[in-house]
Amino acid sequence: MTKKRIAVVGYGNIGKYAVEAIEASPDFELAGVIRRQTSGKKPLELANTIVADNISALGKIDAALLCTPTRSVLDQAKKYLKLGINTVDSYDIHTSFLELRKELMPIAQEHNAVAIISSGWDPGSDSVIRTLLEACAPQGLTYTNFGPGMSMGHTVAAKSISGVADALSMTIPLGTSIHRRVVYVKLASGATTEDVSKKIKNDPYFSYDETHVIVVQSIDEIIDKGHGVNLVRKGVSGKTDNQLFEFNMKINNPALTSQIMLACARATFKQKPGVYTMPEIPMIDLLYGDKESLLARLV
Amino acid sequence: MTKKRIAVVGYGNIGKYAVEAIEASPDFELAGVIRRQTSGKKPLELANTIVADNISALGKIDAALLCTPTRSVLDQAKKYLKLGINTVDSYDIHTSFLELRKELMPIAQEHNAVAIISSGWDPGSDSVIRTLLEACAPQGLTYTNFGPGMSMGHTVAAKSISGVADALSMTIPLGTSIHRRVVYVKLASGATTEDVSKKIKNDPYFSYDETHVIVVQSIDEIIDKGHGVNLVRKGVSGKTDNQLFEFNMKINNPALTSQIMLACARATFKQKPGVYTMPEIPMIDLLYGDKESLLARLV
Repeated sequence: MTKKRIAVVGYGNIGKYAVEAIEASPDFELAGVIRRQTSGKKPLELANTIVADNISALGKIDAALLCTPTRSVLDQAKKYLKLGINTVDSYDIHTSFLELRKELMPIAQEHNAVAIISSGWDPGSDSVIRTLLEACAPQGLTYTNFGPGMSMGHTVAAKSISGVADALSMTIPLGTSIHRRVVYVKLASGATTEDVSKKIKNDPYFSYDETHVIVVQSIDEIIDKGHGVNLVRKGVSGKTDNQLFEFNMKINNPALTSQIMLACARATFKQKPGVYTMPEIPMIDLLYGDKESLLARLV
Repeated sequence: MTKKRIAVVGYGNIGKYAVEAIEASPDFELAGVIRRQTSGKKPLELANTIVADNISALGKIDAALLCTPTRSVLDQAKKYLKLGINTVDSYDIHTSFLELRKELMPIAQEHNAVAIISSGWDPGSDSVIRTLLEACAPQGLTYTNFGPGMSMGHTVAAKSISGVADALSMTIPLGTSIHRRVVYVKLASGATTEDVSKKIKNDPYFSYDETHVIVVQSIDEIIDKGHGVNLVRKGVSGKTDNQLFEFNMKINNPALTSQIMLACARATFKQKPGVYTMPEIPMIDLLYGDKESLLARLV
């Protein structure tokens, strides 16, 4: 079997775990890591890996995992799809992924490539479960309760507030899709707890939720990559009420995100050219191995 | 919109709930119910429904829900697929569904029809979740814990034992895929508790599990269609251990089975001719409505 050659684009948290996922997989080979800045010191674990700022240094590539911030996904995906390279991203803005899908669609089709967008756990595997549970009980409500875990978006928002030297925003689930924000803050010199607390609570990222601000000496000492979800649906199958469903997980966030992205990279080779979200692809396509043997074990 | 016309084949528990699911759906119309015996009294709720022993009495049919025992699924599916009618069944023998798939495949393809087999909750929605969780954590163990709920197969096995007038076999989950069987028995006249208990415990259906036999006066008084599952996976994403996943449900068994079968009937119209299990179809195909609107809400 020829292993598929994967480029990891971006080397933040998700990129680092993506390299591990590729190394642990039976059917993929790390072609290299693409970083904007390659002049700095190479991380120790990449000693034997090509690290470049351009895909051309990596030889033939079958798919690219876009481990970059959501805001740069569109440009990155366009670039690789135009080269006929399949892409996978974890674009996480629930309100605009359809625009991404629409904009990439003609490019993927023209260049005979496949993109799977918004793959990760939410959006991603949670999206698949929400879809499946609506088929199980078409009438009813689904609640997605996140955490406890670090919110990337809210952490960035808190860090950008004046008087904040460093921050960590935790998402705490209160049930029925309601969340509490607990923001741990390291104050910049001269800043006061009262002032920073007020600014955070008035920020549109936080003003709609119950928000607590706690001043700490060091953010590094409290960061943990664990996260979780509790996804609940109660609904009606046919004319029968009170059908109860619940999905829970407690996971290392970037490890799971990158593992799902890699599984989606595998699935790209089994789809027709175009752009897909996870509920649009058959789940069996995510797995390595002979299809009938997998079905025999899993169905 | 023209509603798809569905035939319900068989009118046991699942057939009855299938009629309700069709009536509750926005995009399907009940073409009629096919029963072997139509000479008896027509059930009250079918007063305005065509009940026949032959599909020809029902007019044009788009899909047939095979709500018959697993052992007759092969013959029934062949018959309808040869007429170009899509079929859905809840064939539940985990060790032989691949043979069913293989045997129906050329028939479906030749007659330009689609069959989705083994659709229900296990096999079915649980199969999809097991597949998804293996993509999330490729290395690890999945445990499927059933119940508490009535096992159809074990109940039939218990009823067939001499000295048993009526029976109900409950499946009790002990965790890590180990189950206890509690068999409620109404004795036939002249039978003894000791003798019947011994026979049940020595039956190959029960001899491998912890089995308890309890004699009762009436089985009808204790039957409840509630069932459940607790599906657990603990595994490794990339090189990160201890990723924890859990899916729970507490449901009316035939209501859920028939609802999922109907969702699969909807999906048959979106697949190429052939035979599929649920992990082989995109989850979004199970739902009614405009795809982009559904994705906007669910991804």
